[in-house]
Amino acid sequence: MVYITRRFNFSASHRVYNPSLSDEENFKIYGKCSNPNGHGHNYIMDVTVAGEVDSKTGFVMDLSELKGIVTSSIIKKVDHRNLNTDVDFMNGVLPSTENIAIKFWEQIEKKINTDKRKLHSIKIQETVNNSVEYNGKK
Amino acid sequence: MVYITRRFNFSASHRVYNPSLSDEENFKIYGKCSNPNGHGHNYIMDVTVAGEVDSKTGFVMDLSELKGIVTSSIIKKVDHRNLNTDVDFMNGVLPSTENIAIKFWEQIEKKINTDKRKLHSIKIQETVNNSVEYNGKK
Amino acid sequence: MVYITRRFNFSASHRVYNPSLSDEENFKIYGKCSNPNGHGHNYIMDVTVAGEVDSKTGFVMDLSELKGIVTSSIIKKVDHRNLNTDVDFMNGVLPSTENIAIKFWEQIEKKINTDKRKLHSIKIQETVNNSVEYNGKK
Amino acid sequence: MVYITRRFNFSASHRVYNPSLSDEENFKIYGKCSNPNGHGHNYIMDVTVAGEVDSKTGFVMDLSELKGIVTSSIIKKVDHRNLNTDVDFMNGVLPSTENIAIKFWEQIEKKINTDKRKLHSIKIQETVNNSVEYNGKK
Amino acid sequence: MVYITRRFNFSASHRVYNPSLSDEENFKIYGKCSNPNGHGHNYIMDVTVAGEVDSKTGFVMDLSELKGIVTSSIIKKVDHRNLNTDVDFMNGVLPSTENIAIKFWEQIEKKINTDKRKLHSIKIQETVNNSVEYNGKK
Amino acid sequence: MVYITRRFNFSASHRVYNPSLSDEENFKIYGKCSNPNGHGHNYIMDVTVAGEVDSKTGFVMDLSELKGIVTSSIIKKVDHRNLNTDVDFMNGVLPSTENIAIKFWEQIEKKINTDKRKLHSIKIQETVNNSVEYNGKK
Repeated sequence: MVYITRRFNFSASHRVYNPSLSDEENFKIYGKCSNPNGHGHNYIMDVTVAGEVDSKTGFVMDLSELKGIVTSSIIKKVDHRNLNTDVDFMNGVLPSTENIAIKFWEQIEKKINTDKRKLHSIKIQETVNNSVEYNGKK
Repeated sequence: MVYITRRFNFSASHRVYNPSLSDEENFKIYGKCSNPNGHGHNYIMDVTVAGEVDSKTGFVMDLSELKGIVTSSIIKKVDHRNLNTDVDFMNGVLPSTENIAIKFWEQIEKKINTDKRKLHSIKIQETVNNSVEYNGKK
Repeated sequence: MVYITRRFNFSASHRVYNPSLSDEENFKIYGKCSNPNGHGHNYIMDVTVAGEVDSKTGFVMDLSELKGIVTSSIIKKVDHRNLNTDVDFMNGVLPSTENIAIKFWEQIEKKINTDKRKLHSIKIQETVNNSVEYNGKK
Repeated sequence: MVYITRRFNFSASHRVYNPSLSDEENFKIYGKCSNPNGHGHNYIMDVTVAGEVDSKTGFVMDLSELKGIVTSSIIKKVDHRNLNTDVDFMNGVLPSTENIAIKFWEQIEKKINTDKRKLHSIKIQETVNNSVEYNGKK
Repeated sequence: MVYITRRFNFSASHRVYNPSLSDEENFKIYGKCSNPNGHGHNYIMDVTVAGEVDSKTGFVMDLSELKGIVTSSIIKKVDHRNLNTDVDFMNGVLPSTENIAIKFWEQIEKKINTDKRKLHSIKIQETVNNSVEYNGKK
Repeated sequence: MVYITRRFNFSASHRVYNPSLSDEENFKIYGKCSNPNGHGHNYIMDVTVAGEVDSKTGFVMDLSELKGIVTSSIIKKVDHRNLNTDVDFMNGVLPSTENIAIKFWEQIEKKINTDKRKLHSIKIQETVNNSVEYNGKK
């Protein structure tokens, strides 16, 4: 069992805002993150896959295959986009980093998992000080 | 003559878009950076001041004074904001990193310069791969 | 179950020295770390909390609440201080990074834990090459 | 139970190439990584040891002892070397990062483990985007 | 006058070895860097261009144009290659980082320079501790 | 003319305190940096040498020679030491980062300079946010 990790980068804007609450309540909970015209981040995402090492290739998973899945399912949809308005699978989802990680997991889990390997974790750094990790477990 | 540098971080959104051009021309020049709903970055800014070392304090400039000037004149106005719509001194300015650096310089130069010290450079990293430096010279 | 991490920085001095041993024994075990007038580090601490995502806020825990607890219970007491002499909860504790992590855990565990979230780990980097992680388990 | 990590750096060249396959098959699987004259990396390796904190020293393990074991068993053999041709324990092993991590584990596990501490993981970063972690479990 | 910098990464192997000297002399000068089967690095290169800000685009130079020039003239030729044997413009050149920087400068200077902008510097980091900068001046 | 840079790391403690001023005045100027029992940092120092590339070696300066000079003249004296009390050449000098850079320059300039190369700059990072650069010019 070996864990491989590929890092991805994307830049996006968002507004952390719950439309079912008033502006005052939003500002109380989210502070400057709820500013009406949004702000943005350079997100860093580490996708980790766990599996056996294939004796022929020496790989758990071909990194170019992993890159292809994550790029087409996630990066192309979110990079240089607005997470509140531009991304189909974020529709109606409050774009906290926690929810972003869960929604990203849902986009790629089935495309990555086989008998020999499983998506193990998604870690997203929003800023140098804040990050979130999700591993699909309850 | 010693150069001191203080790093600042801010997160902002922007759309790189010239309103005097058509959408097609904008997309041709700016690509995904001109996407209509904007995107964002974690900007890293290094402000450098050059000057003599004060024999009493051992400092070129008190870093808390420098921090105060840059925070009140720049960071409070741009952090968690939209650079196209929310920042007074960016009004009507195309928010390329080049223009951001020049506009930031204008906000703080006079507040920093004295007989013994001068604002020397502003360096802004937009992403891990792209940065811009401005030193006020033509 | 999602894991959120907030990074904190502090600068402190210490001397790694066991007063129940002779100076020679201390130097044999700790080398230059036992130099009599101490030395110091820029410590980087990652505090991780595990929990459910609140459906209203989208957060496991409000990061400003987490920042408040860690700042008042730890950072204000250790930043720009001497870990051997200036910190109440380090009194009589040999300031190895291992012991620092355990003592820090004790200061914040009860203030963070609720039915829905638990302090998961504290990771402290002493230098770019050395780090320690503690998760409260035996 | 505390986890300590020491980081090591080494620079090495390799060619990712399976001699039992044709050049075409190798290029199909490994792309530019199979270029005949090799290429190279600055590898970053994090070695983590888990154990109890010794009440006398405050340490899980003396970091200079850990450094000594890893330097003599691994770093001296691979640093500024070719992983395909110059390293005894890599003989006949396809030098993927997965296999490098497993072989490194075998070199040091017995030298580190005692009743009170165990080698916990080896993490190797090949590039800023790619890394592998191995913890000895199947 | 504004300075823009774009970062590039490449991985290559090399042997630092002067064929006009004996093996002993080579080892005396270059140490482990002259090991016969080579070693390698993840090089980080920062290319800086100085120029006026174009009033229409807000740019000193379109970064995708800069990326195109550097990728086709340098990165495609050196990435995942052996700098002693695989790169036409390094033919007969001792691949010290100093010489690499000078040769890289020669490949791109004319393609970048116009009336309004000039190649300003090339900075190459060979390892986290060693780097070289060249600005075309004698 | 090529510029080579070698990075060095050291950990030290200090108290920023001017003994000719009262404790109140010291606290007013230096804040928590004047706490009586000191604090500490992991300093990062970049030493840059400018010179011609030697046609025989391909080097501006042998990095192991540079490492030897800086290690014996500076690092061995300051690493894991107290900059106020333990370092001969800091005797009577207020240990601001500005003064540290100037004093370090004095220790190595003559040992590095020859007809073909000159010490060009010393850059010291005290924390991730603060740094100082000195180049010997008035």
